[in-house]
Formats: sequence, C-alpha cells, structure tokens
Amino acid sequence: MSGTNHTLELVKNGPAIVLVEPQLGENIGMVARAMANFGLADLRLVNPRDGWPSEKARAAASRADHIIDAVSVFATLDEAIGDLNHVYATTARQRDMIKPVLTPREASIEMHQLGDEGRNIGILFGRERWGLENDEVSVAEKIITFPVNPAFASLNIAQAVLLVAYEWMNCETKASELHFERKQPIPAERKTLTAFLDYLENALDEAHYFHPPAKRDRMRMNLHNIFVHAELQELEIHTLHGVIAALERRWMKRSSG
Amino acid sequence: MSGTNHTLELVKNGPAIVLVEPQLGENIGMVARAMANFGLADLRLVNPRDGWPSEKARAAASRADHIIDAVSVFATLDEAIGDLNHVYATTARQRDMIKPVLTPREASIEMHQLGDEGRNIGILFGRERWGLENDEVSVAEKIITFPVNPAFASLNIAQAVLLVAYEWMNCETKASELHFERKQPIPAERKTLTAFLDYLENALDEAHYFHPPAKRDRMRMNLHNIFVHAELQELEIHTLHGVIAALERRWMKRSSG
Repeated sequence: MSGTNHTLELVKNGPAIVLVEPQLGENIGMVARAMANFGLADLRLVNPRDGWPSEKARAAASRADHIIDAVSVFATLDEAIGDLNHVYATTARQRDMIKPVLTPREASIEMHQLGDEGRNIGILFGRERWGLENDEVSVAEKIITFPVNPAFASLNIAQAVLLVAYEWMNCETKASELHFERKQPIPAERKTLTAFLDYLENALDEAHYFHPPAKRDRMRMNLHNIFVHAELQELEIHTLHGVIAALERRWMKRSSG
Repeated sequence: MSGTNHTLELVKNGPAIVLVEPQLGENIGMVARAMANFGLADLRLVNPRDGWPSEKARAAASRADHIIDAVSVFATLDEAIGDLNHVYATTARQRDMIKPVLTPREASIEMHQLGDEGRNIGILFGRERWGLENDEVSVAEKIITFPVNPAFASLNIAQAVLLVAYEWMNCETKASELHFERKQPIPAERKTLTAFLDYLENALDEAHYFHPPAKRDRMRMNLHNIFVHAELQELEIHTLHGVIAALERRWMKRSSG
C-alpha cells in the first residue's frame, strides 16, 4: 500500500479544524496527531495564546509534522472561516441558542455529503478552560455535542477533535473503503476432527479413562461436544494430535525401557 | 438530573480496562478520565512501571477520582483477567495470529450482548512504547483494531481507550434490540483455564514435548491460543483436566509397575 497517496486521498474534502484561542502548545500538538490518525490535514489557529510556531506543539504531535508545518494562523475568527461554506461549533454544555444540535456521527454524515458537493467545511473548538464564547458559537450554522456521561462531561480538546475526526473517517459511507485485511478463522473439515477424536479415544481406552463402562458413551459424547463446540482449525487439531502423541510416546518409552 | 445515579446506571456491565505494564502515570490518569467520560469504571493495572498509587495519574485524571480510587493492581496478566469470561486485545499492527479482528464499533455491539447476559469482559491495552507482547495477545479471544489512517496509525493509549469507551457508551445496536433468544455457553473464568494450561504444560514438559528448546515459547503460545479460541466452559475444562490426568496416571502405573 502506498501510504502517502492514501493520505492524500483521505484528506480530500475533509473539514478544517479551527482552534479558537488555544492555550497550550501541547494540546495543539495532540490535536494535530489526532487529525493525522484520521486523515484530516487543515488545522487553523485563531490567536493562539503562546504564539506560533510552537516547539511544544511539534513535540506533542508525534511526527504529524505535515500538519504542524501547514498550520495557518489568524488574528480573528472571521478571517479563519473566511473561505468556508459551512461552519459547525462544538460545545460541551447546553447553549441558549436555537440551532440544530448533532452528534459527531450525524455531523460526519452531513459533512461527507457537503464535502462531496465541493463545499468547504470547518469545525470550531473553544479554549481549553471555557470553550467558545456565545458570539463565536453564533457564527456556526449547527452545533456538535458529544454524547458523554452527563455526570462527567469534560472532554479534553484533543479528545474532542479525535472523536470528530474518527467519525469523519469512519462514516458509514466511507467505511467500506477502509477495509483492513481480516482473517476469520475457518473450522477444520470434520474428517480431520473425527480422525483426532478417534485417536484420542484410543489413547484414553488404553489409559482406562472410560470407566465405569456404563458411562462410556456419555463420556465419549461429552468429549465430542467439547471439541465440536471449540470450532478448531486444521492447524490447531494437528497441534493437539501432537500433544496426545507426546503423552503416548512418553508412556511407550517407559514401558519398553 | 441526579448525576450520581446516572453514573451508576451507565457503568452496569461495562468492560474492565486492563493496562499491561503502563509506563507513564499521566497516561493512566488520562485513561481514567476517558473512562469517566463514557461511563466505564473498572480500571486494572498489570505491573505499572512507576508503581501505584501515582500522583501524576490522579492529576491527569481531572477529577475522575472515583476511578483512580478504585484501580486494582496485579503482578501478572493472568491474575488481572482471572475473573473474566471474555478477553479482547487491542493492537495497532497486524499480528501473525488467527483470531477474529473487530472494529471498536463491532466489539461494542458484541460486548453489550455479552454484558447483558452477565458475562465479565475485559479489554487489554499494551505499553505505550511497544504495545502487547504476542503471548499477551494470545490470552484474548478476539482482537480490536482501530480503523486509522494507515499512513499515520500510532494512537496514544488514552485515545485508544477513549474510542473504545465512546463506542461502548454510544452503541447503536443495544443488546435489548436484538430480539432473538440466545442461550450461549459461558466461557470459564480465566483462572480455571490458566490452572488447566499450567497442568497441561507440566505434563508435556515431563513428556519432552517442547523441543527443540528454542521453540518452547512458540509452542506454548500456540497451545494457549488453541484453548483460548475454544472458549471452553468450566465443566469442559474439568473434563479435559481428567483426560490429561488419565494419560498421566497410565504412565505412572506403568513406570511404577
């Protein structure tokens, strides 16, 4: 797989992540890393408290240098969203505003549709301490809120970006394109299992396992059930064959020695 | 809204989060915070590098004190998963093991079903630097892998926990909606399986099964994988214990007779 091309393909039409007055360079870096994990590339900062560039941000980005290098910095929110067609605001708490409220999953479906139509999209994230001001939320058409445990709702900014980016990349419509290789186990052909069970029963007969004789059929069936239920694969059955054979050989060596 | 009751309700049947040899207290704290965000409560540490308790962990947890206070610490992975019926391992890269591979979303659907049936579930997360060892992955029935951008796949441990917890809490297909009757077998608690595997290995050692010695670890891991994959129940394991014991006794009789 050619990683670089894949990246370029994934970032196509992805939303811009707009951090409004971020306070800590470390958080900006962790945001960049989360974006890289899920194929987003356009990171915009509005008036970062500690200035830009930031070595702390670069260190925390864990080699997401392509995102750090491409960061754009703006003096005002209006400038940062100037080229966007659609703006979403993320909020942790209820706002006294009448705007549609979406989950990250719902928003990602919508953003894919808009992106496919060539629209420019951005998502606003507020300061670490107190989020977005009401007048900043007001520039957004819609609000994204995170479905967290109401008893413990505070999400770190990088985690909020992570969830949005994760949903954007794993949106149902895209999921099929991302299929990593999966190998589901295939149970062995039954003749392999039967041969193993015959071998095991023979060993157990010689070891006088099946007693009293009246219980033999019941015990045999129990054993069969265990190995059928286990859905073992060819290789696994061969290994168990070796296990029983090892225990057999040991006996044979002793009795002939 | 009564926050506390809500929390209690949410954590019912949630999976345990098992961190294997975590290195940094900060990361343990951020994991606790992510768990609190999404209603998980059972955090287990296997042999944390910098010991426990950790003030750095508590600080990074941002007031998820109920989780930090309830952390349990274990010397070995086997002890940490002793009371669990189902174990998942999270991995970032492809492993040379034949186990089912799930996305966090697929796993969360399954975990809700299992949790509703009263099973104890745990998810393993590896060290920050190099993840889980192969023999640690081998105790898991299934693998959870994160659908990240293949060109930039490194997820921080707290982010990995965040995504799993987020999917667990926001699972769309809650088990209650799946209306078919399931009376599925319950895998034994892991301590039963561990005791059986110890017994089997001992018998095989005496039978000189593990040779050449260089292959011992690999052969041991293969055996573990087989019996983990089989998802055996308590009674089934007892039966297999009897099978091995019968083969043992046979040898002892012969060699003493």
